[in-house]
Amino acid sequence: MASLKGLGYSGGMDIAQLKAFPLFAELPDAALSHIARGATPLAFPRGALICRKGEFIQGFYCVLEGVVKLAFLSPEGHEKIVDLVHGGSSFGEALMFLDRPCPLYAQALTRCQLIHVRKEAILPALDRYSSLARQMLAGLSRRLHQLVLDLESYCMQPAAQRIIGYLLREAETHEGQTREVTFPVSKALIASRLNVTPETLSRTLSCLSEQGLLKVEGKRILIHDVERLRDLGPR
Amino acid sequence: MASLKGLGYSGGMDIAQLKAFPLFAELPDAALSHIARGATPLAFPRGALICRKGEFIQGFYCVLEGVVKLAFLSPEGHEKIVDLVHGGSSFGEALMFLDRPCPLYAQALTRCQLIHVRKEAILPALDRYSSLARQMLAGLSRRLHQLVLDLESYCMQPAAQRIIGYLLREAETHEGQTREVTFPVSKALIASRLNVTPETLSRTLSCLSEQGLLKVEGKRILIHDVERLRDLGPR
Repeated sequence: MASLKGLGYSGGMDIAQLKAFPLFAELPDAALSHIARGATPLAFPRGALICRKGEFIQGFYCVLEGVVKLAFLSPEGHEKIVDLVHGGSSFGEALMFLDRPCPLYAQALTRCQLIHVRKEAILPALDRYSSLARQMLAGLSRRLHQLVLDLESYCMQPAAQRIIGYLLREAETHEGQTREVTFPVSKALIASRLNVTPETLSRTLSCLSEQGLLKVEGKRILIHDVERLRDLGPR
Repeated sequence: MASLKGLGYSGGMDIAQLKAFPLFAELPDAALSHIARGATPLAFPRGALICRKGEFIQGFYCVLEGVVKLAFLSPEGHEKIVDLVHGGSSFGEALMFLDRPCPLYAQALTRCQLIHVRKEAILPALDRYSSLARQMLAGLSRRLHQLVLDLESYCMQPAAQRIIGYLLREAETHEGQTREVTFPVSKALIASRLNVTPETLSRTLSCLSEQGLLKVEGKRILIHDVERLRDLGPR
């Protein structure tokens, strides 16, 4: 994939644009002006590579508009999306504290307007304004928590994948867009058909339910998030 | 698994014990005394459960001595270790900012001495002392980065697992503890034998090498971390 550099906007960075981010919301104008001097607005067309895996990004990115995909490729060339970053959110903060290259690539999923904030502009503000540090701690904590949940999903064994595959197939055959699956026979029989123990079937369903992917009501399964379920299912 | 509550030490919390943690190293004694008042020393025997998955921990834990395992069980009952926390490190900080239950369980892998620090004791110090916020940001960033690398490993496809399985088998047969594998024939032939393309073999080896698990020197593979490789290999 070729790296397309963002096209810098003409003119300076408006502090009102920074204020729109929850991360910066509580900062006084003087602090925002300082950060603005270390910030560069960037525009990327859809599909453009914002940063490569292995690149040092020297700061972090705020997404003004559009959606950024953070992902990596498996050795076989399959893409795994780790996060989708929407307008009002940011990415890359963790790397500022690590002096490590980017473990993912960032690509514009839609036309994107971003702000790149240089490390030198943000670190002094972090030391001075505790609200900024608290917001950043909360943001990193949310992502850490989400990654642990993702890792849990990915560690599911083949049996779980068979169960997910079954649910996805049933959800598709039942009148197009419906997201409800009703087991036509007992759970024990379904388990047997899928070559898993009834305990594994129950535990897998509870686990998926805990993760907010579906809800179990007796023999009825209401699928809340087909996309994430598909992501976990057989490849 | 039964939850064994830690046995509280008699006597108060010594601020010298807190000072030993990099997290608290730059704090003045007054701040440490305040934190100490919200801190509880706990001792756990080997194997004891420190907190259950799903529990609200109301603060975070510092490990004075011993090793704590953070893990979850797959629906099939396989344990996946997410992190091992050694003396001088801490865990659970992210949950303080989220109001979410613990997504993992924490278990004493050895006899452990911990300090539980209550949220109410640490949050005011975080607002007041930027060094504490910076240390915590750095700690969360390190874990976030490591989790992304772990997720990458777990998303490896079956072909990668066959390659890892081959390396582990070869490393074992060659005189016991040696961690060096030499391809007896060309990489193209090895790839063919493993039913993967030569490109997949190369990419998998580079990927494992980037992660610090091994080093490739022509036909020689030096395995740096057999344990982690085993964790990624065929189950």
